[in-house]
Amino acid sequence: MESLHDFARLSHNQITTNSWDLRAAVEGCARAGIPWIGLWRDKVQAHGIAASRRLVDEAGLRVSSLCRGGWFPAATKEERQARIDDNRRAIEEAAALGTDVLVLVCGPAPDRDIVAGRAMVEDAIAQLLPDALAGGIKLGIEPLHPMFAADRSVIVTLAEANRLMEVFQSDALGVIVDAYHVWWDADIFAQIERAAGHILGFHVSDWPVPLPDTLLGRAMMGDGMIHLRPLRAAVEAAGYRGPIEVEIFNRAIWDTPGDEVLHLLKQRYLAHV
Amino acid sequence: MESLHDFARLSHNQITTNSWDLRAAVEGCARAGIPWIGLWRDKVQAHGIAASRRLVDEAGLRVSSLCRGGWFPAATKEERQARIDDNRRAIEEAAALGTDVLVLVCGPAPDRDIVAGRAMVEDAIAQLLPDALAGGIKLGIEPLHPMFAADRSVIVTLAEANRLMEVFQSDALGVIVDAYHVWWDADIFAQIERAAGHILGFHVSDWPVPLPDTLLGRAMMGDGMIHLRPLRAAVEAAGYRGPIEVEIFNRAIWDTPGDEVLHLLKQRYLAHV
Repeated sequence: MESLHDFARLSHNQITTNSWDLRAAVEGCARAGIPWIGLWRDKVQAHGIAASRRLVDEAGLRVSSLCRGGWFPAATKEERQARIDDNRRAIEEAAALGTDVLVLVCGPAPDRDIVAGRAMVEDAIAQLLPDALAGGIKLGIEPLHPMFAADRSVIVTLAEANRLMEVFQSDALGVIVDAYHVWWDADIFAQIERAAGHILGFHVSDWPVPLPDTLLGRAMMGDGMIHLRPLRAAVEAAGYRGPIEVEIFNRAIWDTPGDEVLHLLKQRYLAHV
Repeated sequence: MESLHDFARLSHNQITTNSWDLRAAVEGCARAGIPWIGLWRDKVQAHGIAASRRLVDEAGLRVSSLCRGGWFPAATKEERQARIDDNRRAIEEAAALGTDVLVLVCGPAPDRDIVAGRAMVEDAIAQLLPDALAGGIKLGIEPLHPMFAADRSVIVTLAEANRLMEVFQSDALGVIVDAYHVWWDADIFAQIERAAGHILGFHVSDWPVPLPDTLLGRAMMGDGMIHLRPLRAAVEAAGYRGPIEVEIFNRAIWDTPGDEVLHLLKQRYLAHV
């Protein structure tokens, strides 16, 4: 398939330049000619929600998604309720920021019972969907890599995310396909097809060998083993034509000047995505 | 379900005491009253195949499996053939050591094409099955955790191992269920049921949080997040009543005196498996 020829769909997920605050990230995107930005709640809260929205608007950017809601399972009913309430605030923040996608990282089980943890996720989504619908926000379930099953998400395959999506059959619920998390899956192309019409985001980065760290080990596109282009072809065949977020947790990249990072990721986006 | 009440099925995979050579591991098992041992080719070769067999026999131990064959994908036809030939030698070694199980760690793709890598695995197994049948050896496909998809195995779910097993429908081919590699899988209980009658081994360890390292991070049973007992119940319901190997790659455990390790793993085996 063809490479991308312009940056119309490129989104800078701001975690990729984690040392930049919100203003620096927005201004960096504007300088680099990157039209989309993926925002994080902590950065936005530090700047203020309304002020962040103004900054983004004045720079002419659009917000591809807000990271992140989720983290649903907890040991007590009270704590689970507190997390649902926090997700309600995240839905409001997403709407205020002018995006329609809230990314869900579903969270780990509070104990060894991953099956019960998954049930808690399903219950939380059921409670949040009316709020999401009312707010015009779509919840995007992002399956994480199975190596995060114990500490970040009980949802670790696109098959599981699709199953949840099909349970609810709601316009306010879909899935996020992040290459780093799903590339290894022998069933991934079938699962992307199954998600057709409900894909809310496509995230790219790469998997270096050896992997230096599970959380901070992911690499710039082209520096690892992921064949990104067939994954893009698959999400496009499934109807997704929205922004493509570059989302990289990597200490060395965080320590690189942000303008250099954006320059490099633009090159790699055309060459590898 | 009930805990285990004795050590009749306990096997010490000798990687768990990696600082011990073959003789030390055999003598350690004998002292500890552990009736089974899982052997590694490098340790056995260092001691000599026939001499290893004598040592094991004289100690009254039985060999649960030989680790490991596999590592099939390679960039050239010649290199792939060399690996198949090496696996033929591993089959002979397994037979000489008195076990009927050769564990397959299938290997990574030589490039970004994981799909092609999987086809190379299938081709290699096709070539090896006549040798395995002739030698009275069963090849046990061990799916590794998906975090090893880029550098150790293109086979990363029990579903894929089952699919290969069903392609060939051979008495000489089955699967190994290692809890560390498969515990995260929402489909694991269905896949264990699908493997009924073809499970050749059950390996236990644990997944600590945080995981300090992908390869050397696994922990002693009870020190992590894996609910081992339901997995044992599932493999037993699927007909597996053979040895249960404790297989732990962990630097701190390797640096602990072997007798202490065996003492602890016996306790944890009764408490958690």
